[in-house]
Amino acid sequence: MSHQADKSHSALPDSEHARRGTNRQLVLSRRPEGALDQRCFRLREAAIARPSAGEVLTRTLYLSIDPAGRIWINEQPSYRPAVALGAVMPGFAVSVVVESRDPRFAPGDLVHGDTGWQDFSCGSGERLHPVDPALPGPLSYHCSVYGVTGLTAYFGLFDVGAPRPGETVLVSAAAGAVGSIAGQLATIYGCRAVGIAGGPAKCQRLVDELGFAAAIDRKALEPADLWASSRAIAERCPGGINLYFDNVGGPLLDAALLNMATRGRVVCCGAVSMYDGVAPGAGVRAVPGFVISKRLRLEGFLVMDFYDRREVATTCLGRAVASGELKVLEDIIDGLEQAPRALVEQLSGANIGKRMIRVDPAL
Amino acid sequence: MSHQADKSHSALPDSEHARRGTNRQLVLSRRPEGALDQRCFRLREAAIARPSAGEVLTRTLYLSIDPAGRIWINEQPSYRPAVALGAVMPGFAVSVVVESRDPRFAPGDLVHGDTGWQDFSCGSGERLHPVDPALPGPLSYHCSVYGVTGLTAYFGLFDVGAPRPGETVLVSAAAGAVGSIAGQLATIYGCRAVGIAGGPAKCQRLVDELGFAAAIDRKALEPADLWASSRAIAERCPGGINLYFDNVGGPLLDAALLNMATRGRVVCCGAVSMYDGVAPGAGVRAVPGFVISKRLRLEGFLVMDFYDRREVATTCLGRAVASGELKVLEDIIDGLEQAPRALVEQLSGANIGKRMIRVDPAL
Repeated sequence: MSHQADKSHSALPDSEHARRGTNRQLVLSRRPEGALDQRCFRLREAAIARPSAGEVLTRTLYLSIDPAGRIWINEQPSYRPAVALGAVMPGFAVSVVVESRDPRFAPGDLVHGDTGWQDFSCGSGERLHPVDPALPGPLSYHCSVYGVTGLTAYFGLFDVGAPRPGETVLVSAAAGAVGSIAGQLATIYGCRAVGIAGGPAKCQRLVDELGFAAAIDRKALEPADLWASSRAIAERCPGGINLYFDNVGGPLLDAALLNMATRGRVVCCGAVSMYDGVAPGAGVRAVPGFVISKRLRLEGFLVMDFYDRREVATTCLGRAVASGELKVLEDIIDGLEQAPRALVEQLSGANIGKRMIRVDPAL
Repeated sequence: MSHQADKSHSALPDSEHARRGTNRQLVLSRRPEGALDQRCFRLREAAIARPSAGEVLTRTLYLSIDPAGRIWINEQPSYRPAVALGAVMPGFAVSVVVESRDPRFAPGDLVHGDTGWQDFSCGSGERLHPVDPALPGPLSYHCSVYGVTGLTAYFGLFDVGAPRPGETVLVSAAAGAVGSIAGQLATIYGCRAVGIAGGPAKCQRLVDELGFAAAIDRKALEPADLWASSRAIAERCPGGINLYFDNVGGPLLDAALLNMATRGRVVCCGAVSMYDGVAPGAGVRAVPGFVISKRLRLEGFLVMDFYDRREVATTCLGRAVASGELKVLEDIIDGLEQAPRALVEQLSGANIGKRMIRVDPAL
């Protein structure tokens, strides 16, 4: 079913909140110290803004919940300015245009962009990217496989990791949003994908449902025992790791580095194990000795740097979805107010596949 | 002066040891635990071997002393098999052919190769590479700027680091063999080179003699204080580091990572601060968070992977030597028996420039 069938949802807002003319917003009320607590966010109601020249008012349909959000709220700026206290929490979403003063957009258009944790968003049309109606699957797929998540998996794997068929590709957080797609793309490309995930149920799904060649249960590892973790990886990657698609950082990165094959690449995509803070003494101990002797390359990337080539990725992803080779796992939670809890739990690995909030209850 | 004037040294051996027909060899007598002790090596005398078909007998003239030797003697193999107990310590040297059963070499030819810590070496001609007589400077230059050292600086900087004119290039162990050449090449290429070296005397020479834009005295830093080291680097690299040519690893790598500019590259050339072992808790703490948000690339390399293009490097290095732009610092110690001490002291930074042993006392 194409999301085009949902076009009725692109009409003007009709939810209760919209009728009342208010915009529910989740704002950062205090900065986390260590583990994120959902009380760092506060729900408030604001007036729905009207667009000025060049601006577009959108209504949020599906809101993406991403571990990177944990970084954005630190006091220290990251690759984007730190979220200010009292500001609306940023976040990517699939939205519908309500009112537009940007000639590129018209009411009813489905768009994608960083419109934040709120019912309505008003801002420059520059932030928005049209949803491609030709891509197969439901509307939510534009928040998962065709959204930042799928683009991250695609560009990280192919552009940064440069895999060759036959190579062993290890993926951490492999049952997560990005990892589940990266691992499947590697398999489709002829690589041998090995996934690391938390718990036997996730591991089983990686192998049975997503076509991973093998899986490693990180919860069965003792993170402080580098050598035991290293041996567990070595068992599943006997020829060494050619490409490690790293979503977690921390001790698993250490253990993976000890198992890299010569000229192996580490795609530094995420470091979710370290987002709540890094204990003194924690670090990547295998660097740089192994990096030199094995001629390894570690490379970080941000998906936004590849946006000018997003159609290359979505075309490829769309074909793999249409053929049934690429399965899209989604974890959809209803209600904007659930976003803080959804993020907190995601950071400890509660989700399987892409976690998102269905903001519009009528969807 | 060209080393061609020294051609008389390429005659058959006439030193006392040679007359006695013995080959002094330094062998690994025990593996180091932690800091290297020169008593890990033992001097022995052996018969001078005669070459079989395809083999070449060489006499060592200049023996290169390299920190990497510390890695080769660990029990754990690195990028080459571990040196066996009782085996001759490997090492690159400039030698003269004494007797050849390889048609590519004739007695008197000057050659370069991994012939080890000994007066004479007998083995396959495949190990040897002819010294190019057209390159300017004394014979010792084939052990320094035209040897593994200069090639490492050249390929690490240009092929791995890919600098652009105007960029800031930070070099650690900048008064060392590789660092002093890498920093000067960066300056010649139009980059702003900043060196880290141990002590005010070395720092002064970097700026006054080698043309570095600035220098940082690592001995004035407190290695345990990551933030103080980071600030010291930030002062000398106010626009961030575009390329870090890392010879030391350890806490300085942490501090450098905190100061990388967006899309910065770390050339992982050496990790001399970690060769004697890494304390528990030591590691690279800034990885991978900064690697992702700054889109950094860390890449290890071994110079041997670039040997097929060595003439590209030596031609460039030769021109820079001839023009006077590239100054070659050498630290020459007399006597094969001094090699263990020379390595031990080098690991704690005793040398300025390329440390080598003049094995033939007649040179």
